[in-house]
Parts: sequence; C-alpha cells; structure tokens
Amino acid sequence: MIRVGVLGATGYAGEELVRILSGHKEVEITMLVSHSYVGEKMSDVYPHLRGVCDIVCEDLDAEKAAKDCDVVFTALPHGASKEVIPALYEKGLKVIDLSGDFRYNDVKVYEKWYGQAHSNPELLEESVYGLCELHRDEIKNARLIGNPGCYTTCSILGMAPLVKNGCVDTNSIIIDAKSGVTGAGRGLNINYHFCECTENMMAYKVATHRHTSEIEQELSLLAGKEIVLSFTPHLVPMKRGIFATCYANLNCDMTTLQAVEMYKKFYENEKFVRVYEARKLPESNHVAGSNFVDIGVCVDERLKRVIVISTIDNLFKGAAGQAVQNMNIMFGLDEGEGISQAGFYM
Amino acid sequence: MIRVGVLGATGYAGEELVRILSGHKEVEITMLVSHSYVGEKMSDVYPHLRGVCDIVCEDLDAEKAAKDCDVVFTALPHGASKEVIPALYEKGLKVIDLSGDFRYNDVKVYEKWYGQAHSNPELLEESVYGLCELHRDEIKNARLIGNPGCYTTCSILGMAPLVKNGCVDTNSIIIDAKSGVTGAGRGLNINYHFCECTENMMAYKVATHRHTSEIEQELSLLAGKEIVLSFTPHLVPMKRGIFATCYANLNCDMTTLQAVEMYKKFYENEKFVRVYEARKLPESNHVAGSNFVDIGVCVDERLKRVIVISTIDNLFKGAAGQAVQNMNIMFGLDEGEGISQAGFYM
Amino acid sequence: MIRVGVLGATGYAGEELVRILSGHKEVEITMLVSHSYVGEKMSDVYPHLRGVCDIVCEDLDAEKAAKDCDVVFTALPHGASKEVIPALYEKGLKVIDLSGDFRYNDVKVYEKWYGQAHSNPELLEESVYGLCELHRDEIKNARLIGNPGCYTTCSILGMAPLVKNGCVDTNSIIIDAKSGVTGAGRGLNINYHFCECTENMMAYKVATHRHTSEIEQELSLLAGKEIVLSFTPHLVPMKRGIFATCYANLNCDMTTLQAVEMYKKFYENEKFVRVYEARKLPESNHVAGSNFVDIGVCVDERLKRVIVISTIDNLFKGAAGQAVQNMNIMFGLDEGEGISQAGFYM
Amino acid sequence: MIRVGVLGATGYAGEELVRILSGHKEVEITMLVSHSYVGEKMSDVYPHLRGVCDIVCEDLDAEKAAKDCDVVFTALPHGASKEVIPALYEKGLKVIDLSGDFRYNDVKVYEKWYGQAHSNPELLEESVYGLCELHRDEIKNARLIGNPGCYTTCSILGMAPLVKNGCVDTNSIIIDAKSGVTGAGRGLNINYHFCECTENMMAYKVATHRHTSEIEQELSLLAGKEIVLSFTPHLVPMKRGIFATCYANLNCDMTTLQAVEMYKKFYENEKFVRVYEARKLPESNHVAGSNFVDIGVCVDERLKRVIVISTIDNLFKGAAGQAVQNMNIMFGLDEGEGISQAGFYM
Repeated sequence: MIRVGVLGATGYAGEELVRILSGHKEVEITMLVSHSYVGEKMSDVYPHLRGVCDIVCEDLDAEKAAKDCDVVFTALPHGASKEVIPALYEKGLKVIDLSGDFRYNDVKVYEKWYGQAHSNPELLEESVYGLCELHRDEIKNARLIGNPGCYTTCSILGMAPLVKNGCVDTNSIIIDAKSGVTGAGRGLNINYHFCECTENMMAYKVATHRHTSEIEQELSLLAGKEIVLSFTPHLVPMKRGIFATCYANLNCDMTTLQAVEMYKKFYENEKFVRVYEARKLPESNHVAGSNFVDIGVCVDERLKRVIVISTIDNLFKGAAGQAVQNMNIMFGLDEGEGISQAGFYM
Repeated sequence: MIRVGVLGATGYAGEELVRILSGHKEVEITMLVSHSYVGEKMSDVYPHLRGVCDIVCEDLDAEKAAKDCDVVFTALPHGASKEVIPALYEKGLKVIDLSGDFRYNDVKVYEKWYGQAHSNPELLEESVYGLCELHRDEIKNARLIGNPGCYTTCSILGMAPLVKNGCVDTNSIIIDAKSGVTGAGRGLNINYHFCECTENMMAYKVATHRHTSEIEQELSLLAGKEIVLSFTPHLVPMKRGIFATCYANLNCDMTTLQAVEMYKKFYENEKFVRVYEARKLPESNHVAGSNFVDIGVCVDERLKRVIVISTIDNLFKGAAGQAVQNMNIMFGLDEGEGISQAGFYM
Repeated sequence: MIRVGVLGATGYAGEELVRILSGHKEVEITMLVSHSYVGEKMSDVYPHLRGVCDIVCEDLDAEKAAKDCDVVFTALPHGASKEVIPALYEKGLKVIDLSGDFRYNDVKVYEKWYGQAHSNPELLEESVYGLCELHRDEIKNARLIGNPGCYTTCSILGMAPLVKNGCVDTNSIIIDAKSGVTGAGRGLNINYHFCECTENMMAYKVATHRHTSEIEQELSLLAGKEIVLSFTPHLVPMKRGIFATCYANLNCDMTTLQAVEMYKKFYENEKFVRVYEARKLPESNHVAGSNFVDIGVCVDERLKRVIVISTIDNLFKGAAGQAVQNMNIMFGLDEGEGISQAGFYM
Repeated sequence: MIRVGVLGATGYAGEELVRILSGHKEVEITMLVSHSYVGEKMSDVYPHLRGVCDIVCEDLDAEKAAKDCDVVFTALPHGASKEVIPALYEKGLKVIDLSGDFRYNDVKVYEKWYGQAHSNPELLEESVYGLCELHRDEIKNARLIGNPGCYTTCSILGMAPLVKNGCVDTNSIIIDAKSGVTGAGRGLNINYHFCECTENMMAYKVATHRHTSEIEQELSLLAGKEIVLSFTPHLVPMKRGIFATCYANLNCDMTTLQAVEMYKKFYENEKFVRVYEARKLPESNHVAGSNFVDIGVCVDERLKRVIVISTIDNLFKGAAGQAVQNMNIMFGLDEGEGISQAGFYM
C-alpha cells in the first residue's frame, strides 16, 4: 500500500482527492492536513464522507509527513506551496503539487504572470509538468510534479493534435473557456454567493489570466516555436466542468472528417481522451465526475477555420483525478486505478 | 461472476443501474434491454459511459434472458413490469423489480391506490418488499423483489424507530417530502422542462400519491396496527435527492438526546444509515451519489412533537443502489459491494 | 411626490425597494443610506440599476433624513433598526421597518424569541404590524410599521381563513416552509456559497425559528385564543420564493370545494391574494417578482385533515413589495401603485 | 390607445410580450392568438398573469384582427409567419414579426441559410430590419418589421462601433455566444429537460447557425464590404440571457481606454446601450429582465486583439422588448415607454 498525505484536504480539490483516494485499492491515506480544521474529522467538515473517511485533520509537521507518507499531494493556495514543498522534498517524499508554483520550465514566465519572484527556482528545474498524456515518460521518474491547471489541461489537450501536426496558423489561436464555480474554490466571495451566481454568467481576467502562460508554454513546445494566444475565462452557473471552445485558422485544406481522424490517431492509446465522431459534440456532463477528456472537432470550410470543443471536469481531470493519475504513473501502478469510474451525468 | 440483465436500461434508474453495476467487482452485465434504443450502444445514448459500458441495447427476449442472466433488474414504466416479469420468473431467473407492481402484501391495497386489477396476484405473494434494513432475512431467500420507491425508503426509515418503539401517536404522522427532478424520470413533460422547473417549486398529488400506501403498509407492520398518514410530495429544482421532514406527536416525554440515542441503537448495525448527533441535521448533498440514508432527529419539547429529517439519493438508495444492495443480499455477497462509495457532495 | 429614503439600500431587500420605488409614479427617492458603500452610486453596487437609479449612497444623518424625506424604509440587520428608528420617529418621519424589532404586540414575546431586552418598548406600542390584508385600518393611521417577515406573511395568510372561522383543531397546526436563498441576505456565509447551495436542500432552526412567534401572534389574534404551532424552515436552491405547506386537523366535515369557497369569500376584496380553484395548486414561479399571494386548498377527507399551499416572493410581498403596499395605504394612494406588475415566471 | 394583437401568445416570446404590454400605458391588448390554447385564458396557461391579463386565447381570424388591432406581433414558429403575415399586411395592419422570415435584404441569403424558398419575396422588400439602434429612421415609416434574433442583436451591437469605424481586420471576427435556455422556446425536447440541462453546457450548430447570416448582413452593411465570420452558439444552464464574447484583430494601435471612448461616442444617444468603463465588464444578470444592452471592451495589446463582451436578455431586448421598442418608434411614442424598467438581477 502506498501511504498518502493530502495537504489542504478541506478545500474543494483536497476533498476530491480524499474522495478519490478513499476508493483507490493501492493506497492508504495516512495524513490529512488542514490549517482551518485541525482536530476535526474530515467527515465533520464534509458529512458525505462519514463512514468513508473519518480521519482527523492535523497541522503540518514535515517530519511526521516524511515518516508516515510515501507521497504527498499539496492542494494549497498559490504561494503556500512554495513554503512547504522544499521541506517535504528534501526529506525524500514524492510531491504532487496542485498549485501553479511548479508548472513552468522557465522561471521568468512564472515571474511575469505571477508578478513575484519564485522562491525555489532550483526545485522548479527538478519538477515535471504533470499533463499525463504529453509528459508520461518524464512523470515516471519525477519526484516533484507541477499538476496542471483545469483550464490548461482542457485547452492544451484540445489543441495539441493540430499544433503538433502544424496544421494551424499559430498566431490565430483563440480559446474561449467556460468554468463551473468549484473552479473558484471554497473561499467566501460575493461573486460566488448563490444568489449572485445562479442565473448569471460573466467573463473575468480577460487577456490576463495566468493559465494563458501554461497553455502557451505547452503549445509552443509542441509547435517547436513560440506561440502566444487569446484565452478568455468565463464563469457559468454550474458546479463542475471546464468547457473550452478553441478557434484557429487552418493553413491547409482539411475536412471535419480528416480532422477527426487526425485527433483519433493522436490519442489512440489514451484511455482518458475520447474523440467524438464528426458532427457529434461533447457536453460538460459527459465528463462530470470522471477523469475523461472529451473532444469534438469541426472544420468550417467556408472560413477555413477549425473549431475544437474540449471538456473536462475541473475537479477531476482538472485537479484531483489527474493528480492521482500522476501518482499511478510515478509508482508504476495501472494508470487508471481508482479513476476509471463513469461520471455522474445527472 | 453474476450475470446481470437490465430491462429499461436507458431510463434514469436504468442508467444508474448500469453505472453502478459497471463498477461492481462480482458482476458482469450480459444484457441491456431498451425498447426505444434497440441496436444502439448504451454509450451512444449516454455518452458519459463511453469506454465504461459500450454494450448494445436489444429488445426483450425472455428465452435469451434466461440463458444469459442469473438476475434481471426491471426498471420499466409502471404496468410494463407485470407483462414481462412472470415470463422471466417462470424460467427461474431472479428478478428485482423497480416498479410499484410487487411492493404490496395485500393485493387490495395495490388495486385501491393504482386503480386497476393486479394481473399476477399469485406472484405478489412470492415477492418480498426489498427495503433491505427492514426485510433482510426475507430478501436472502427471495426470487422476486419489489424494490421500494424513493419517497418510501426515505420516509419509512425516517419514522421506523419511533413507530416500532411505540413512541408516537400513530394518528398524527405527517410526512412532507421534497424530491429532485430525476424522480420524475426522463419522459418529456412541460413540468420538467428546464425553464419551468429551475427557480420553481411545487407540491403535487397532495393526499393522493401512491407512495402513501407503501409507507402506511410498512409503518403499520412495525406498529402492529393500522396506520394512515399524510404524505405530501414536492418538486424542488435540483437533480437528485429525496428530503423528508416527518412530524408526529410524542406519547411520552423524550428529549432530543434520548431520541437520537434510540435511533442510533435501532440502526447500530446498519452500514448505510447514518444517524446525526443532536442539533446536527443532514442535507441532501450529504447523500447525493451514494447509498446512504442520513437521519437527524429533533424533539420540540414545547409542543411535545418530534421532527425527523431523513434524506437519500432518489436514484441511488431510492432506486438503483438499493436494487444492487438487494442483489448482494440475495447472492450472499458483501452487502456493500459496489455501492459503498462516498457521494458527490458537489 | 412623496419623498422617500431607504436605509440599508444595498442589501437584497434594500435593492428590491429601490427597484420597485424607481417605477412608482408617486414617489421620489431622496436618500439612500448604506454604511458599506458610502460615496458609491447605487448603480455601481448593482449595475443593473444604471440609468434607473444612479443616486449616491450616504451615511445616516437623521437631521438630513427628517428634512429630505416624508417616509423612511429601514432594511437593516436585526438590532440595527432599534438604534436608528427612535431618532427618525421623533423627528416626525413615518417609518416602515423591515426588521423584526417592531412586529410584536407583547414585548415579552419579542424578548423570549430574540433573547434580548427590547430597547424601545414604548415605540413598540406605537407600531402597527404591517400585514396589509389583516391590519389595513390600523396601518392607515400608523407612523411606525413593523413590516412582516417573509415566512410569516406566507404562513399567516395561508391559515387565516381556517383559523378565523374556527374550522381546525388549533393544536394541530404544522407549517412546513421552504425558502429561496435571497431570504438569507447578501452576507457571506459558506452555507450560501453557490457550490454548497445548488443541488442541495436543508432544514434549519427546526423548532426554534423566530418567525414562529410572529405566526403564533397573528393566528392567536384571529382565533381569539392562544395558538402554538410547528414551523420548519427549509432552504431550497432557487433565488426567490417562500412556499408554505400547512397542515391542520379539521374539526368539522368539509370538502375541498367548500374550503376553497371559504377562502375565496375571506379574500374576495383582496387584490393581491389569489385563491386557486379546487385541484389546482400554486407554484413558486407564479408569484416570483410580484406582490401576489397564491393559495391552494386541499381537504384530505380520508384523514379529516386540510392541507394549504401558500406561496409568495420573499423579497416582494415578503419584504419590499409589502413595505410599499404599507406606504401606499399610509399615504392614501392606490394600494397597488407601483406593485401591480405581473411576476417573472421565467 | 393603440390596439394590439399577439399571435403565438403562449410561447415564451409571446408570454413576454403580453407581460410587457400589460404594463404599457399607451396600449390595449385586444387579441391573443394561440392555436394550442384556443378558448383558454392566458392566465390559465400562465397563472402568474392572473389578474393582470385574463384575456381568452382565440384562433387566428385575419378579418377580426384587421378590425380589432392597429398592430400585430407575430411570435410564431419559423415558417408559420410567412403563411399568416401577408393576409394581415394586406388588410393594412402594421406587423412586427419575431421570426426569421423578414430579416433579410437579400432573399438569396435567406434561402441559403434556411434551406427553402421564401414565399413572399415582395414583402421581404417592404420589411425593415428592426434593430432599433441601427435602423431607427427606416423603422419609423415601416409597416412590416423583421424583429432581430437574440444572438444577432447582442452580437451586432457588440461589434458595430469597431466595424463601422474600420478598426478591425474584417476576416478575423469570431463571436462565441452563450444563451440561456428560454432561447430554445417552450417546445418539448430532451435537450431542454431539466435533468439534462442543469449542471451542463454544450455548443450546438457550430459553423451552421442561421443567426450567422443576420450578423454578417448587418456588419457588412456597416463595413461597406462583405464580412463573413465565425459564430458559435452555446447553451448554458440559466433561463435568460445572451452573452457574446467577440474577438477581432485590430488593424491600428488602440488602448482599452480609447476603445471604450469610441464605444461611448458611438452609443451616446442610445438609452438602452450601456458601455462599461475600462476594466469593468457586464454580466448577464445586469440585463436580465430589461431592455438594456451592456457592453464592455478590452484591448489585448500583447496580441493586438480586441475582446468585446456584450450581453442582453434574450426574451426582452432579444425578442419582446425590442419588438415593443419598434412599436414605440413606429407609432411615435416615447421609445422607452413600457420597457424602461430595471432588470431583475436576482
């Protein structure tokens, strides 16, 4: 049994980790850390977990973590990870970090988009970007994973085949992304108050959202040249789901059927990526509650433009599920262990 | 492996059965029947199941069912079950029926509330009411289960300890129940159109809902005398969940603490019933996506009245989950196999 | 033109007052008070009001209020009203208070349910309970109105005809009430966070909610004897709406038709009360966005029990709309001026 | 008083017309036509209208319409309008048609996107496209209005200033639009069933939606050259609202501030268009229940691309409200009469 700790267990991503790990056959949860709920049972904070996970939350003790855990998931607010992870890493623990702190190849990109110096540039070099479908080999041998953001997983996997195969004008990429409200976390904010949120939608951080830089990093890597692009996040009144509508100008003639074939081939060995037949499109409840990435492709021949619809569950494949997928890869387990269930749909 | 068939696989209860059974270790789905989708893959009707259950739906063939299955779940519209089940039963299959047709001890009660003659009164005598917590021993040896309704499971388990222990005036019971919209099924009806349903709530079938008779039957059995009661169903704008607020006049002095203790004792060996500490109350998302029944009890000493809050997921413990629980009992498996996961919460 | 001030303009009830008053022909808003938004335009806090009400919020100045206003609506948190109202009242202003502070005939009842001494018992004697349909004559000459709560308006009007006509056992009344989330106000609280609230329902303050005492006061007045009753509030995932399901044992023989006739007669001159024909029931979106109270009545002859469904919009008839109705009565205007529009439905 | 008839009164746009017209001071509703509800009161179909509009629905009688009405709104399914309108028009009635049948300058464009011949090409020449802010002068003298679609009103007004002023590369326009579910009407369809719709979002008719052609027609007119563009409609789980995120490459240097100034200038005399200050963005509930068009503009200088957020209420400014605005213009009334109320927000 792999002994697992979760830091930030009582946030939404933390809760999802606990929920998933509770059903994982090869894992034992040995430590739950939550600054806000020290001494309280996980199932007192989240009553749906009663009888499933009644572990008591504790404060962080790096010594104890090193002794009790083989791997630690850190689902902390941005910035908090950087304080904690070096200590855990030094003690030999494997770390899967769900924050933005260890997702970059280039410290300058981090500093530009996060507006602050990075406190552990040397660890950044050790870390691997945990987008499993694109970095599986590096993940196998990694000890520190920067687990990708929800918007980015959805957007990158949506555009990867076109970009890798050089089929689009790389200056023309626009990603219009919509998120459910769990993506904003559990912190109190009038914007996420039920009465302000339900029956409402909005765009936010237009042209400035940090996930833009992650998407650009990975697509540039695939293209072999620098890509900059538009990324617009929106909030829609549902709990779970990222839904990305991606646009790019084709630089060659291509039909929808041909595009679909290209996508199928690109992802043919990927258990969690489901490419739709031509004229069929994924909806966000096709993936809610699951680790799947569902992708539909449509070529507008009139405009010589391709539109890709990509959707994931932001808490699952966009956070906790992919983190467990990374763990499975790192420990040589079946990659789908504990995360292969069908989603909720309703 | 137990070979399982699902009739009515593409309705909401059917889909939930397929979803749960796909993750059940001791089961192989060998037949999916859907009149409306013969020849289509289950995962074409419900794309979230792609890669999880791609079985093709077929029309009913009782011979084939008898050959290919050990047990059949029938999730058909009321009335349709009666046509189909005798043939399956005769061929030696075990049958777990999710309709109202085989839930009664007394054919007259059925005929009064359903307003029609019962076509198989002799089978009704064979059948066992599949409320696992109250009829476990009979279920073990049953070949035909009348799986309880969603409202009834929630209401009966909510009131059982008080009624069994003779603590309430049996003429005073009122159950005010609220349901999510999946309870109404997948059939088209303007009442369940998104724009009519969201931001709206209603009561319906006041004083006439059929589930009243199921609740009365079971509580009368527990009380050892005939009970009649008020049951009022409501529709609230959420997908899943039954939430019952039950009222009764106490016939003895009792504090909330004493009532909670009584409930804990009554359900002390029940894995799926979670009694809340005094002053804590369950909410519907504590059980959504799970087989749990969560119960809170509160005594209003000013009025000498007890209020019980009971909540389940209508599709899970209220339909498909309890059906699988019945199967587990019938086949001598661990009662929680395949249905012990934590719910969704969000 | 009547010059109107609103205190607490940026809470939900305050916003609804501003919205309604902006369309009222006989009224000019001369003062908006909001401690949290001093110096900001109402339409910066609530952008939907831009071009409709761009008045700048100010801090409270009682002198200025007395000079600039004929009437003041106070939509402040409980407790805050008591500090402010005496000063306004002394200066000769008419005051319509939306808090619970001036709703009681008996200071002891207030103190029992609010758990604190009342700071202005002498003003309490001056004040009139502003349930327009029951206290119209007193309201005409009142200078201080205790505007009723949302739950109470809905519950009292739902039960009034039966209680006034002595048709029910007054010990048997149970009111199971459901509320939309705006009823909880705009203050931040994890319970009203979108992700915790949507797809969820709960009961709260079972047997202890303060509105119980308001309902008991008014029904006792109608009955001519003291009534105590059960009142259970619930939260359902919608923005607006109170939906009360009321139960009582009949003390005489009565059919549904007869009950409906009695209700129609009782409310025959009431513009805002709509009694439904037998077998028809109101839904919460029949009244959302309007000042109407919709009532359906059903007799369960099997149990000799009556079930009444009563529904209002909590912000409109349950708060701001009724407050304006009170103002109209106090100033001798057409009672429906500014509040006679149809609701939203969708 | 202007005598008004509504054809298709019981659909969602029809209901919204009745609701708005009931509060319009210069109007008397003299005829409601609904094939499905002949002989029933409008308020039996929509109980929220009881006491507000209790007119009985009738079948269409063109003679009677000509006698009883000065103007008729036709809110019929596409195709049905064409059958009915010529008869009404010939009799001298003014007609405001909410279908797509009379929105085109060029019959060929209609036939290409609607896939059928137009049965009244000569009437198409008489008709005026009723986008009030762009065609006010023509509307004044029109007798037949093609009232614009919801997506198109929002998209065209969002892009008009940039296109008219020649600031963008007209080959680069992409409009990613999101709609609430009332946009799909009241017809039954599993896609709009509550349980399929809530907590779900989808794209549909990618690259093929008919509204594309309306947007292209109007923007081409403004640009003085032919424009083709990408338009992608989405369904989001809310009742009301169109939310368009529009992208275009700038062909000149421009800051966000400059762009905002340009928009303010373009719309300086428009009561219903509200341009937001730089760095502020509209949300769909800023306009829900109102005739306003709210627009925010953001220049991404890094990419030399402009992003415009434009939002309206699909039933109000996107259908019934704009239809009434057209009527007000046609009859020389105050353009805002009956449609100047603030929206709901919550």
